[in-house]
This record gives sequence, C-alpha cells and structure tokens, in this order.
Amino acid sequence: MDEFSFINTIKQGRYNQPSLVRGIGDDAAVFRTQEDVVTAVDTFVEGVHFSKKTMSPYQTGYRALAANLSDLAAMGARPVFYLVSIVIPKIWKLNELEEIFHGMRALARNHHMDLIGGDTVSGSELSISITVIGYVDQDMARFRHTAKPGDHVFVTGTLGDARAGLHLLTEDRECDYKNVAFFKKRHQMPTPRLEFALKLADIDRVTLNDVSDGIANEANEIAEASNVCLTLYDKEIPTSEDFGQFSLKMQHEWKYFGGEDFELLGTVAEKNWNSLVKAAKDSGVQLTKIGFVTNTNNEPAVFVIENDTKARLDKKGYTHLK
Amino acid sequence: MDEFSFINTIKQGRYNQPSLVRGIGDDAAVFRTQEDVVTAVDTFVEGVHFSKKTMSPYQTGYRALAANLSDLAAMGARPVFYLVSIVIPKIWKLNELEEIFHGMRALARNHHMDLIGGDTVSGSELSISITVIGYVDQDMARFRHTAKPGDHVFVTGTLGDARAGLHLLTEDRECDYKNVAFFKKRHQMPTPRLEFALKLADIDRVTLNDVSDGIANEANEIAEASNVCLTLYDKEIPTSEDFGQFSLKMQHEWKYFGGEDFELLGTVAEKNWNSLVKAAKDSGVQLTKIGFVTNTNNEPAVFVIENDTKARLDKKGYTHLK
Repeated sequence: MDEFSFINTIKQGRYNQPSLVRGIGDDAAVFRTQEDVVTAVDTFVEGVHFSKKTMSPYQTGYRALAANLSDLAAMGARPVFYLVSIVIPKIWKLNELEEIFHGMRALARNHHMDLIGGDTVSGSELSISITVIGYVDQDMARFRHTAKPGDHVFVTGTLGDARAGLHLLTEDRECDYKNVAFFKKRHQMPTPRLEFALKLADIDRVTLNDVSDGIANEANEIAEASNVCLTLYDKEIPTSEDFGQFSLKMQHEWKYFGGEDFELLGTVAEKNWNSLVKAAKDSGVQLTKIGFVTNTNNEPAVFVIENDTKARLDKKGYTHLK
Repeated sequence: MDEFSFINTIKQGRYNQPSLVRGIGDDAAVFRTQEDVVTAVDTFVEGVHFSKKTMSPYQTGYRALAANLSDLAAMGARPVFYLVSIVIPKIWKLNELEEIFHGMRALARNHHMDLIGGDTVSGSELSISITVIGYVDQDMARFRHTAKPGDHVFVTGTLGDARAGLHLLTEDRECDYKNVAFFKKRHQMPTPRLEFALKLADIDRVTLNDVSDGIANEANEIAEASNVCLTLYDKEIPTSEDFGQFSLKMQHEWKYFGGEDFELLGTVAEKNWNSLVKAAKDSGVQLTKIGFVTNTNNEPAVFVIENDTKARLDKKGYTHLK
C-alpha cells in the first residue's frame, strides 16, 4: 500500500463548502466561519465495533461517519467537514479500503460535507478514527444540561433495532425471523437525525443527546448534566413493528441498553411541543413523548414506570426496584 | 478499564482558551473565532511509530502531540485545541495510560492548549490519533505552493538527529557514542518550531513545510506544489555537533531521509531574509540558508550540489546522477 497514491484516490476533486480556505494537500486544512464550530472525534475498531461478518467495507465506512454525524445532530449542528485517520492491516486489500471511503463519501455527499484531512498508517488491526466539524448559529448549540422540570422527554424513531440487527448478524438463524433486512440495516447503516435536529432552530431551548449507548445511559447523562430526574413510561418507549418477535428479555435489554440506534433523546418545554411535532413531520421522523422531567429531591436519576411500578434505571444496565 | 472514569482522569479542571464555548462533557465541543481555523490529524501506532523499548509512555504522548503541533507550525498557526482518540490494549496499565496523557498535557500546557474531546476504545494495539486545531490571522496561513524563483531555501535546527537517536535506541551500542542523551531526546521529545513560525507574522510570504519524512520528501513537496525547482548545497545542510561520529552512509541517509526531526523547511524572498534571521534569533532557533529556488524548465524537481556535482534528489530516498 503506497500511502501517497492512496490519499490521491480518496481526495475530492472539488469541495462543496464555501468556508473552506484550503483542503487536503498541505500540512493542515484551513477554514473560516462566523458561526460556532462544533467538533467531535469517534473511533471504530475492527473486532470491537464491527467485523467483516457483520458489515461490508462500504457499510463500515458509512456507519463510522454516521456515528459522528449523530453527535453533530445532538448538538443541533450542520455537518461541514470531516478528517479520517485510518490504521490499515496489510491483509486488507486496496479495493476494500476504497469501499470504506466510498461508504463514508456516500453519507458525506448527502450533507455536502468535505473530506479535508487524514492520515493512513499501517498496523495490525483496522481502526477508523473520524473527526467531524459542524457549524451552528452562535449560542444555538444544543446541550445535555438544559433540561428543566416540567419538560417532556421525547425520542425519535424506534429503539433496540440496531442491537436486534447485530443479533441476527451474529447469533441467530435469520430464517426464523421476519423483516431481517430492516433490522440488519438499522445496525449497518443507521440514519443520523440531522434533518430533524436542524428543523428545531426556532425553538429557544431543546435538550438533546444521541442514543449511542442506549437510552438508559443517555437519559442518565441528561439527568446528571441538568441535575433533574427523568421518568419514562415503559409502554411509551417506541419499538419497531416486528420487534415483538424477539423474547421479552431481549426486547427489554435492547430497547434500554442496546445502543447504536443513533436516535435523538431529548427534553423540551410544553409550549414548544407542537413545533417539535411539526419538525418531526417535516423531516419524516417518528417522534414519541416517553416521559417527563421533575426536580431532584436527592440526586439526579432516571425512573421507569412499568405496570404501575416505578423502578430506577441506571446507566450501566441494571434496574433496581425502589 | 472503565472508559468513563478514565475520561474523568484526563479531563481538564479548567480551560485556557477564551474562544471555547463548551469543552468535554457533551456530544461535541464548541468554539468560536474570527480567525482562520487550521486543523490536521495524525496517528501514532505502537510497533510502527514507537515501542516501549524506544519511548516511555510519557514520551509517547509528548511525541504524538509534538508531531501534530509541527503541522500547525508549518501553517504558521497558533495551537489552541486538541482531541485525542486512543485505542487501548488490555495489557496497558492505567498508570501507563495516564502517563501518555501527562506527556501530551505537558506539551499542551506550554502552548495553553485545551483538550476538548476524545474517545477511548479497546483494541489489540495501542494507537493514538490526535486532531489539532489552531488559529491564524485571516489569509496568513503558510502553504507549500508559494515558493518563487529567487527565494532562499532555509531550514531550522539540525537534521538527522531523530533518526540517529532511534538508531541508538534500537540498534547500536550506546557506549560507543558521544552525546547519546541528546540524540535520544531528539527522537523521543522533539520540539515543534512554533515560536519561530509565529514570529514570521510580519512577512507577507513564507513557504513552510515541516520535516516529518525527511527533507528529500518535503523539498519535493514544495517543488511540486509551487511548480519550481529547489537546489540544495549538501555542505550547507545543518547537522549537530556530534553527528559526524556516525558513518558517512548513515549521515547521508539520515539527514536527507531520516525524518521526524520536526524542523521547518521553507523558502523566502531575499528582501525578507533579515526578518527571518531576527525571528530565529528571537526564538533561539538555528536557521540555515541551504539553497535557492529556480524556474522549472521541464518539471518540478529538487537537486543537490555535492563536490561540484549536481544530482537529483527524489522523494522516496534515491538520488540519481543527471
């Protein structure tokens, strides 16, 4: 693998973003904007986050960037640039590597993003580290610490599907199940909820967090950052049409702790609920009110009401009856 | 290794940069500036770029960030933020990981940089991917494509030392050599030439490239990007006091192709030479005029004059007599 010629194969012919001063080809890229700049990095390792059994190289690239874009969606930011650092084992073939970049580029192109930097080095395991850069109007970034008592708790889409897809890809006989392609796709090529998040720009306060580790984790992150309690109704947690074909234990585990659905979990005041509903409708995204925010008497916490019983939902996957 | 508690151990207690709107703790970081934003990513893999034999964990962290800061120096940009993504094998101990971050932080603190994001994931080999963000006055970033016929070619510091240090760390008996600590340090803890680069702000045009792969490579990058020829005088290539103790073959190989010295190679017009000399003096950096820029009659190229013979110097390590 010749590093220089590989970089040339992935370099864009032209750039989309007018704020870019200089793209790939120098020691660093240069851009200029009046907006607030939002940035995050995420790494995706073969054998940990994916394998050739669960994802094609194209899907691997797509999925790696999707996870990053989901972070930008959770900030209410418009994706603009990305930089990719990739550690490549010698056994990966050039066409497979190109497929990884094609997968990224397909998603990037949907959002007019430019690839403005990167590094390719050899190593023993494939690892893809992506830095994304987005823009948002000044002081309009969405945070986790802004939830207030009285807010509705909402979530986009359906939960647990990506984990169900992984299960079908790795552990179970596909032929026993319905709608297998849907669940696999939710794992392999998730859709970051950017369009929905960007349509909330007129709402002064929306708390957002993306569902990367499961809503048990993300709901606790919001509760802690905002110093509030979130109470969720188990029966309101949205799941997809054929999710009921899995065992009750799996359903419960996956919808709370499954992660990688890349939906948005958030809170918003009652007065803004109708705007939120409109944004969801306009962006074709399912939106569900799943609970409410209250003051914390003691410490921030997340509770789930199920069959008239209230249980505490912890970050790491356990619910203890109170 | 608990990812969450590890992130807490590396999170800064307070941030230095007034342009930071939000640091670690949400889905992404947010900053705001009127200046041009400069960004690059670089990855450092155990077994490829370093080993426990050649660098302590502290030096590994220091060196990884130094390479990135050298890219910012080569852009004339002031370092501001960094994001770190680290793939951690289970056999690395927590205190060793902390040492990696201590090494980075020591260098970052010298430049008032803030760590604003990161990701820690497990894997089979240690890999550190750093994204740096710097600021530069609008339209004052330094590029490789601005060299003009008549320019002087210059380089900071001395060349080949880092490669000599690696040689002493891996292949040769230390006791046979003088000044071993100096050479080792040049490999383990290089100094990015930020101070010098930032003192050039009054010069309207300076071409800069940092010496990461050896000046043969970087000189060719400038020649190609600027569509000019660079001619270097072999006898002017600066080497350190005790560099002569290595074989002539090693000296030649290391000073042209050794890399990782993280000095700055550049070109500047004669009218600005004195300003450059002053910047070098003020920042305590050795500065050497090593050649000149000419028009290309045919194709961009780099030549070396040695003992009244002119030879072509290629990127990849070969010199062919013309």
